[in-house]
Amino acid sequence: MKILITTVPFADTDKRPLELLAASGTDYSINPLSQKLKEQELADHIVDCDVIIAGTEPITDYVMERATDLKLIVRVGIGLDSVDLLAARRRGIHISYTPDAPSPAVAEMTIGLMINLLRSLHLSNNRVHQGEWFRYFGRRLSEITIGIIGMGRIGSRVIRHLTGFNCPHILVNDIDPRVELPEHPGCTIDKADKVTIYRKADLISLHVPLTAQTRNLITKKELSMMKHNALIINTARGGIINEHDLFEILESGHLGGAAIDTFEEEPYIGNLSTIERCLLTAHMGSMAVDCRVRMEIEATEEAIRFISEQPLESAIPEEEYDNRRAEL
Amino acid sequence: MKILITTVPFADTDKRPLELLAASGTDYSINPLSQKLKEQELADHIVDCDVIIAGTEPITDYVMERATDLKLIVRVGIGLDSVDLLAARRRGIHISYTPDAPSPAVAEMTIGLMINLLRSLHLSNNRVHQGEWFRYFGRRLSEITIGIIGMGRIGSRVIRHLTGFNCPHILVNDIDPRVELPEHPGCTIDKADKVTIYRKADLISLHVPLTAQTRNLITKKELSMMKHNALIINTARGGIINEHDLFEILESGHLGGAAIDTFEEEPYIGNLSTIERCLLTAHMGSMAVDCRVRMEIEATEEAIRFISEQPLESAIPEEEYDNRRAEL
Repeated sequence: MKILITTVPFADTDKRPLELLAASGTDYSINPLSQKLKEQELADHIVDCDVIIAGTEPITDYVMERATDLKLIVRVGIGLDSVDLLAARRRGIHISYTPDAPSPAVAEMTIGLMINLLRSLHLSNNRVHQGEWFRYFGRRLSEITIGIIGMGRIGSRVIRHLTGFNCPHILVNDIDPRVELPEHPGCTIDKADKVTIYRKADLISLHVPLTAQTRNLITKKELSMMKHNALIINTARGGIINEHDLFEILESGHLGGAAIDTFEEEPYIGNLSTIERCLLTAHMGSMAVDCRVRMEIEATEEAIRFISEQPLESAIPEEEYDNRRAEL
Repeated sequence: MKILITTVPFADTDKRPLELLAASGTDYSINPLSQKLKEQELADHIVDCDVIIAGTEPITDYVMERATDLKLIVRVGIGLDSVDLLAARRRGIHISYTPDAPSPAVAEMTIGLMINLLRSLHLSNNRVHQGEWFRYFGRRLSEITIGIIGMGRIGSRVIRHLTGFNCPHILVNDIDPRVELPEHPGCTIDKADKVTIYRKADLISLHVPLTAQTRNLITKKELSMMKHNALIINTARGGIINEHDLFEILESGHLGGAAIDTFEEEPYIGNLSTIERCLLTAHMGSMAVDCRVRMEIEATEEAIRFISEQPLESAIPEEEYDNRRAEL
């Protein structure tokens, strides 16, 4: 049995995943290109592999057709948008993931991005480094209305952190109308439809998976509904905000700023980088040592379980396949 | 009676302070240079003023000697390091301030700077804007030991925010050994001497006033004691960290980074701007609309109270003069 590890960096700060692999006597190789593989690159490297420990590279029907030995995909992370779930099912390929591990790191970074945008820290940093002194006026978390779209593992953690700042008003939208909202003294947390969030929130943060429903969720139409100095954050997945539309809206002077950590194509090269008030980070939501190590170890353990013919412990729920079928 | 307003910007986003002044019929002028005045500039502008609504420019004995009509100094903010308190007392000049207003804004920005440094958001932002893609590894607030030096209005708010992130261990040093520490489940908050904090903390944040005791509190000696990848934040006052020493230490490769919002001389021009991992902001701790407006209104109301011969409500405590005497 052979494992291909495509997610990079892997076992960079903590060698335990490699130690686990060595102890199990498994044959493995790590993505030699050291960056996110494109479809053809993945197809070329996956040929004789039984298991892939995957990042967010496209695991398409075409890739699986080439990977004739492939029996298990383990996603290091939670998003499944990069995997053709139904093609995998058809070919009898199992899929596991590590859904809990990245949440704390993404949620915490989101709060950092919020304060960054609200206080223009990135703009001031650049100006002071260039010898300019300009005192940007900002707003505080406790004086604005925040919109959270998606109240799953990450969104609910973001809300928990926000309550520690006495945010006066949080508007929440989730695909599941039965989702239960937390209660916190001094903070009004209300359900709201998306249009209400676009219109009323001073800052919107997205915490939904990328699916057929959420692709291009935020286009020029939605961005135009937002307040003139509103802020938007995407630490979820590229493609949920239409990048082209975001560029045009920001370029036109609308919106106070944006923080984008995930892109339609990564590594990102695009015109958002010409907009100073658009804070850009390199898909680092889960890149905290503890979370990353936990993700890598959980994924490695799952791969080893499979190879040693033990039952899988983190197979994706059946619901994920159902949702994908419903999208057809 | 004539008021000179030196702090800038003033009444920029909210005109209420100017409306209060107009309603009271007071003669006032605003700092015509639109930046922090140097000693001689202040001396030139203050000549015939009765009251000064002051920023952090140096209100020295020399300045007060020129300001023969000066009867009241109202500091927009909390720090008194810029005012020669004993010279003012000797000349019968009253001093008031707005100690509570800036705290929430400074505390919240400090959390933003912490996450920024821990996750290298400023570094990634610059690299992605330059077309480079590099996924920085970071750490989370909930996996590190944080050292807080100074547990006054701001330090205690920072600690309160941190507990919302389940920080495992916070070390606190305060000049007052009787200071009471908050309790929080899941978070160990301990008193510690400064050397213990320098040696053990992964991130140190300073929340002390600038006094004779705290000037050059952090020099090469203290910075060298810190862990190799430790981080340090100064949103308190320039001069508490020796800037020259911080530059040399960072230049040598020691420390993971620093975030400096306050400088010995402002506007800051200096060699810290050559160090990319040193996040630099333009004294923006209090620059949140709500806090700034509150500070300006409180200071203006105090000035008007004085002019209309009502008792002062926010005169600085007698203890401030005692402390200054003790420094002699």
